[in-house]
Amino acid sequence: MRKLNIAIVGLGNIGSYLFNYLNINKKILTEKNNCMPIIKYVSAKNKKKERNIKIKRDQWLDNYLLATKLKDVDLIIELIGGSEGPAKKLVFNALRNKKHVVTANKALIAKYGDTLANIAEKNKVNLEFEASVCGGVPIIRSLKEGLIANKISKIYGIFNGTSNYILSSMDKQNQGFNEVLDSAKRLGYAESNPSADLNGDDVSSKLKILSSLCFNSFLNNEIYVEGIKNIDNTDIDNANKLGYKIKLLGFAESINNKIYQRVHPTLIKNDSYVASIDGVLNAVIIDGNPVGQSIIQGEGAGPAATTSALISDISSILRGNIKFPFSLSNKERKKLKFKSINKRDFSAYFRFEVIDKPGVLSNITNIFFKNKVSIKRLVQNPNKNKQISSIIIITHKSLDMFLNKILKEVAKKKYIKTRPKLIRINES
Amino acid sequence: MRKLNIAIVGLGNIGSYLFNYLNINKKILTEKNNCMPIIKYVSAKNKKKERNIKIKRDQWLDNYLLATKLKDVDLIIELIGGSEGPAKKLVFNALRNKKHVVTANKALIAKYGDTLANIAEKNKVNLEFEASVCGGVPIIRSLKEGLIANKISKIYGIFNGTSNYILSSMDKQNQGFNEVLDSAKRLGYAESNPSADLNGDDVSSKLKILSSLCFNSFLNNEIYVEGIKNIDNTDIDNANKLGYKIKLLGFAESINNKIYQRVHPTLIKNDSYVASIDGVLNAVIIDGNPVGQSIIQGEGAGPAATTSALISDISSILRGNIKFPFSLSNKERKKLKFKSINKRDFSAYFRFEVIDKPGVLSNITNIFFKNKVSIKRLVQNPNKNKQISSIIIITHKSLDMFLNKILKEVAKKKYIKTRPKLIRINES
Repeated sequence: MRKLNIAIVGLGNIGSYLFNYLNINKKILTEKNNCMPIIKYVSAKNKKKERNIKIKRDQWLDNYLLATKLKDVDLIIELIGGSEGPAKKLVFNALRNKKHVVTANKALIAKYGDTLANIAEKNKVNLEFEASVCGGVPIIRSLKEGLIANKISKIYGIFNGTSNYILSSMDKQNQGFNEVLDSAKRLGYAESNPSADLNGDDVSSKLKILSSLCFNSFLNNEIYVEGIKNIDNTDIDNANKLGYKIKLLGFAESINNKIYQRVHPTLIKNDSYVASIDGVLNAVIIDGNPVGQSIIQGEGAGPAATTSALISDISSILRGNIKFPFSLSNKERKKLKFKSINKRDFSAYFRFEVIDKPGVLSNITNIFFKNKVSIKRLVQNPNKNKQISSIIIITHKSLDMFLNKILKEVAKKKYIKTRPKLIRINES
Repeated sequence: MRKLNIAIVGLGNIGSYLFNYLNINKKILTEKNNCMPIIKYVSAKNKKKERNIKIKRDQWLDNYLLATKLKDVDLIIELIGGSEGPAKKLVFNALRNKKHVVTANKALIAKYGDTLANIAEKNKVNLEFEASVCGGVPIIRSLKEGLIANKISKIYGIFNGTSNYILSSMDKQNQGFNEVLDSAKRLGYAESNPSADLNGDDVSSKLKILSSLCFNSFLNNEIYVEGIKNIDNTDIDNANKLGYKIKLLGFAESINNKIYQRVHPTLIKNDSYVASIDGVLNAVIIDGNPVGQSIIQGEGAGPAATTSALISDISSILRGNIKFPFSLSNKERKKLKFKSINKRDFSAYFRFEVIDKPGVLSNITNIFFKNKVSIKRLVQNPNKNKQISSIIIITHKSLDMFLNKILKEVAKKKYIKTRPKLIRINES
């Protein structure tokens, strides 16, 4: 029986869960993959930390980098996290020393994935990162294998459970952003520092990885990223009245051979599939030819779901064939042009909180007119007590640069009471 | 560059689509899989039939079985169909002669899959059948690879686009069964002989294949199968009033280590995910540990979606590693006990069309009482014109055998005007 010696580096919630899973399921994994996974070594920052796992004395490595040098290590599983520092050092050294690597580190792959893939290919080892995108949702393997036949024109969806939990709770329970964020932290749905989840960076990393797989291109940093911190309950109420939900979506799409990557809060029709995804779930929608539209949905985070993805990668390596980390050889991957969304057109929702006095409405609509953005729908909700009016405008499709120009221009006006809002609408 | 010589046998809509796809996409498939697919031979029943493909003279085989003998054939793609006759002969001979096989033939795999897998394993060739279940939905590869970590407790969903199209059209357009079936035939959503789609046999084959993959067992014929032919618009209206949709669902589930397989029309809550799937789509829901619930949805049929699945299988063979057709070696697959649903409990919907006279209601409720099936909800809709009443009963959970006993007992009564209905309800 073939054997594969594994070193797990990083023993937080995920590393510990994986450690136990591998021990318990060694037999079935061996049977299914015709090769036995053996946890040869583990390493983590603090040896003495309380963990729910039984490490044998000869499994522990004080120096995590030693795993990249030892002859009896075939595969290193990196669960440290972060795009720099120890994680980066570990993965670079591992691949250079011809060790297979499995990682859940989306920041690292989104930043250094191309270079790492190149080293892996040269050294004929595997670099797998299913767990870096959407936890237990087997989206990377599906793109690389199940849907390999397809020319993908668009991939989009809910890639961050924390922000989806916050938006759907604000909607269902009519609670404010901060209140919901606090309860998300208590429930373990948000980290103590949730900034990457809330500002869109987490989705951005995942989307870059997915779009390079979908479009057979190198990773590309041309991406528009906007988080959910400016969404309030008034926006959510307005959206409901107009027949929409607000979701933080990531999109990568090829339109007339131009590729756009974008992450932003999006108004999406109430009766659409994506609008129905509540809580911490992730959902990915793929438009491909010949398959048509496919959807994959599941748990996007947590030790259990992440372990499901890690085991999928480990099994692929156990079965023993070397694959290109991004589906294609480095020399076949394309340098595609990714475009700024400035010149992509959207319908949009605007919200202006204004001093309720004559001339304001005509001034605002005039700014839309000057920028050639045509208005589809306008609702003015006066609030006499505060002498403030709320003006909601839904536009027809216009170039993003003009929508932003309007936003900036109106923001400067003296009749504006709070920062104006622009939320893009998903048409399909 | 490695090469893989392919013979395509069967050149209907799917075979022709695949032929063109392989020719057009040879380069990208070669790059992604590090091996070049070459259509060496094709064969079909009628050489002279008009087809939208350009076959070279030396590609055509008059005798399809020759493909299993020729040295310059590595992989045979069987697109004949049917569990017996030429398809069976071709696949058995191919595997015996150490040719890889890719097939879209669910009837063949559901019937002879275990024997075929055994031959493939002994001869160290691949037998792949992604296209046999749910067309373009990469469910088999996801079970074998993306979700390999998981112990599956339940898999269910919409596995037949034709019957789903009929039920959802009956619901949305308020048209009768036959009317909708006719338009489904015109639109190409139903075959001229749609009996396997309508009587549940198509779902039954797919479900057997899926449950053997989910539970690591051999294929098992203990399965309850009921089609949609008895569903009428009154049932659909009643379901709507009660907050349900009627869907033809397949279920394979492990409850207290007993496995149940069943295919039947099902009442499913209006606001559930499955209820929202309309038209010819397929959707698969998987409950697994550790991943939790996953959903995969997509096009379930047609040449384009099926080609997506076939190419996934062909690519797996191009990459070159031998896999067990059902994930596990023949000696590791289990002989699990599959149970009749007689002793599984369900809530159920009953509908009785009765002569509207005193004593009938009490007689019916008494039969429920005698069989220890407790009634959750009862609605009687009188129709004075016809002197007929419609009695709808929703039960609490009861063993299936008692539900059926009631059905039989009431059916014999003289006050019954049309065949009584029993539709099981999905609780989760």
